[in-house]
Amino acid sequence: MSHPLIDTLRQTVGAAHVLTEGDLTAWEQDWRRRARGKALAVVRPASTQEVAAVVRACAAAGAAIVPQGGNTGLSVGSIPDASGTQVLLSLARMNAVRAVDADNLTLTVEAGAILQNVQDTAEKAGLLFPLSLAAEGSCTIGGNLATNAGGTQVLRYGNARELCLGLEVVTPQGEIWDGLKGLRKDNTGYDLRDLFIGSEGTLGIITAATMKLFPQPAASLTAWAAVPSMEHAVQLLALAHKHLGAGLTGFEVMGRFALSLVARHMPQLRVPFIDQADVPYAVLLENSDSESEDHARARFEALLETAFDAGCVSDAVVAENLAQAHQLWHIRESIPLAQAEEGLNIKHDISVPISRIPAFVDYADALLQREIAGVRLVNFGHLGDGNLHYNVQAPAEGDPKAFLRDEEARVNDLVYEAVAKFGGSFSAEHGVGALKVDKLQQYQSPVALMMMRAIKGALDPQGLMNPQCLLPVAAPQLQPQPQG
Amino acid sequence: MSHPLIDTLRQTVGAAHVLTEGDLTAWEQDWRRRARGKALAVVRPASTQEVAAVVRACAAAGAAIVPQGGNTGLSVGSIPDASGTQVLLSLARMNAVRAVDADNLTLTVEAGAILQNVQDTAEKAGLLFPLSLAAEGSCTIGGNLATNAGGTQVLRYGNARELCLGLEVVTPQGEIWDGLKGLRKDNTGYDLRDLFIGSEGTLGIITAATMKLFPQPAASLTAWAAVPSMEHAVQLLALAHKHLGAGLTGFEVMGRFALSLVARHMPQLRVPFIDQADVPYAVLLENSDSESEDHARARFEALLETAFDAGCVSDAVVAENLAQAHQLWHIRESIPLAQAEEGLNIKHDISVPISRIPAFVDYADALLQREIAGVRLVNFGHLGDGNLHYNVQAPAEGDPKAFLRDEEARVNDLVYEAVAKFGGSFSAEHGVGALKVDKLQQYQSPVALMMMRAIKGALDPQGLMNPQCLLPVAAPQLQPQPQG
Repeated sequence: MSHPLIDTLRQTVGAAHVLTEGDLTAWEQDWRRRARGKALAVVRPASTQEVAAVVRACAAAGAAIVPQGGNTGLSVGSIPDASGTQVLLSLARMNAVRAVDADNLTLTVEAGAILQNVQDTAEKAGLLFPLSLAAEGSCTIGGNLATNAGGTQVLRYGNARELCLGLEVVTPQGEIWDGLKGLRKDNTGYDLRDLFIGSEGTLGIITAATMKLFPQPAASLTAWAAVPSMEHAVQLLALAHKHLGAGLTGFEVMGRFALSLVARHMPQLRVPFIDQADVPYAVLLENSDSESEDHARARFEALLETAFDAGCVSDAVVAENLAQAHQLWHIRESIPLAQAEEGLNIKHDISVPISRIPAFVDYADALLQREIAGVRLVNFGHLGDGNLHYNVQAPAEGDPKAFLRDEEARVNDLVYEAVAKFGGSFSAEHGVGALKVDKLQQYQSPVALMMMRAIKGALDPQGLMNPQCLLPVAAPQLQPQPQG
Repeated sequence: MSHPLIDTLRQTVGAAHVLTEGDLTAWEQDWRRRARGKALAVVRPASTQEVAAVVRACAAAGAAIVPQGGNTGLSVGSIPDASGTQVLLSLARMNAVRAVDADNLTLTVEAGAILQNVQDTAEKAGLLFPLSLAAEGSCTIGGNLATNAGGTQVLRYGNARELCLGLEVVTPQGEIWDGLKGLRKDNTGYDLRDLFIGSEGTLGIITAATMKLFPQPAASLTAWAAVPSMEHAVQLLALAHKHLGAGLTGFEVMGRFALSLVARHMPQLRVPFIDQADVPYAVLLENSDSESEDHARARFEALLETAFDAGCVSDAVVAENLAQAHQLWHIRESIPLAQAEEGLNIKHDISVPISRIPAFVDYADALLQREIAGVRLVNFGHLGDGNLHYNVQAPAEGDPKAFLRDEEARVNDLVYEAVAKFGGSFSAEHGVGALKVDKLQQYQSPVALMMMRAIKGALDPQGLMNPQCLLPVAAPQLQPQPQG
């Protein structure tokens, strides 16, 4: 395929790194296979300078750019639209760790570095990079930042945003902003860093970042507690904060039905207390200790004893060793797969204030059961952050495809209306992408949307950066012009 | 005084809360008495709706607005210019705590609430609000957020930015953005919250905020360590991170000359190890423990023993009780006053990556001593954050006023050039205000400045919000028009 822009891109990054032919599914289809686009070309620059040159070439040609990291997003935010006019800019070749600064507790890494490799690099330096999520073997740090990724350690260490001290960004005009200072305090103007973090590639392209590191804990222990209700889970969380302080690094809640799916489809995983009919929820707790495993165990036992006495835990087990701890986490992380084995389902990623979670769950459970016949609720998530994956499994009877076709929109409306009623967010950690642009218009404050549009217009006046995502702008004018 | 805008403001907030006569020094002069302006009026609205109405009236009249909290800023960011045309909008009457949500670990408070009152409110709920700084008895949470205040607990809890979950803001158009959700995860669009935090009143007016709370530690202990060099202080910091984990809540470094000023001017404060001639630096450490005082002490002793063995501590004392701990902190906090007692001096608030602090100090000390005869360096600060108050005392001999007049600009240039050379920031926690607008232009990246100007123009197209600060815009057209 020939096209003036494609020729320029080939000159910029080398013909081998401009893909226009063959199977481009890996770049053009989203992770959950909900959508597929068609790129004008897939471009794989190797340096920040090459990214800037690509952006300038696209800006000159009026071509839209879709930046892509590991393409593991859950909101269809990193694939081109179907027009065949957009340039897919993959950061995958920019994966160097530029520097590890142990005394400053920072690491500077390029956007295309795989999250797990960043974790490993920190570990080799005797330090901890705490961002951790299911896709860590494939997702990239640039994508984590563009979407402000969350995961299981947010309770203690924060989202990707809170782990980032500085960014390098290519602007929509193809200029390079070097904001990579590894400073913990720097009050010299507007917070551009946090504006780019979570902007989903719509304001510019993150090419590198300086991230915080932490001392490795001396020991991490995992416990599993049966709790009599969601209210008791929230009480247990308060006790755990009080007893463990910053040692509390994980607090996951799992509903009985979610765990029963794991027990049914992965019988080799032994789910604790699943045979006790009076256990509506289980909580997985992680305690990371700077002293020793013995100390971590003693603190855990003191917490659980207090929790028993307070009636907010009915049974509990503390993993005896690392293998048992991994097993417990594996049960938690197997819920999505168990859901898939069970059949089609509707996923949510919502948050409400932690204090309102019990009332929200009561309300939403009753509402859905009343409105949608046979609905089965798969409720689990990061309770310590107020973040639930409040999913809806198709009824056991009937055609699940028909259920999704007929009911998905209504289920979403019911769930999101309930979330709004309890002061929550329709997208806690997965972002908006192209998937939820209508929800953003529906649930975000009009004043906030007005300011967001003003910012988008100010920084990307051509509207070329990931234009179908977050705040969609009209399709650019460029048409494919095959030549020769 | 009568003026159409003043009449409107009187109707809006009540005549008693529009001040135009008498002694307005408290609002018109900055904290360090470096500058004094003249306001068209001082307006004291009592509610968010009144703030919005004031802003709309000013926007209609083309009058600039300077928001003010406790007026304790150190960069002349909250007083009007000398034109007599700007409206000083004080948030002082908006000081309610709207809600404390213990299970969500949040508190929602109006902008004019005094920081110490916010701390006290949290304490009464059995929780901790960790933001702490010298002006806490007078400064307001709105000012803390507008300037992204730092202080002594940043090492563990972060700046004001990291403590904030949501804002309520009145836009330059007089609209109210309710972004007060107390959510730890919410990825639904651009991060407006962090854009307003640190924007120093130039993008809108923060009227309320939802802030994070933390469990109170069971015990906090303070230690004072003599260290043989700044390099050893950095090594001690790494050991303290490793041994204490998140228990390390304070790590302050103080140079020998800084401490000798305290010993000279406050002889009743007994500065540890001041008689040991071979102690160039002391470090104050704070260990906050979720378990008990005994445990905190045992962990502190294990750390200090390791540090002795590693040669990075030559002597140390752990406070035996709260009174002793307060005494040690009091010594640290008395350095600015001791400096004032000693005479005139030039203050800085700089940061560099922690790993580069020893080399920076060596370089800057030598440079200043070579270039400026008789210069005396008062070096102290939050080493755990890479933030030094690298101050310069006038020479012991000669006229200090003449020294400041003749040398202040050159001293600043030398310090800031050194900071830039080591990848640092000329304003770590005090912001830019009107005082450092030229430094912002000189040291901030041109690409970053371009984006900041674009954002300012997009959100405040009339250029009426605190126009002489951060990114100055041309003076507005309004002239005082005394009538009747």
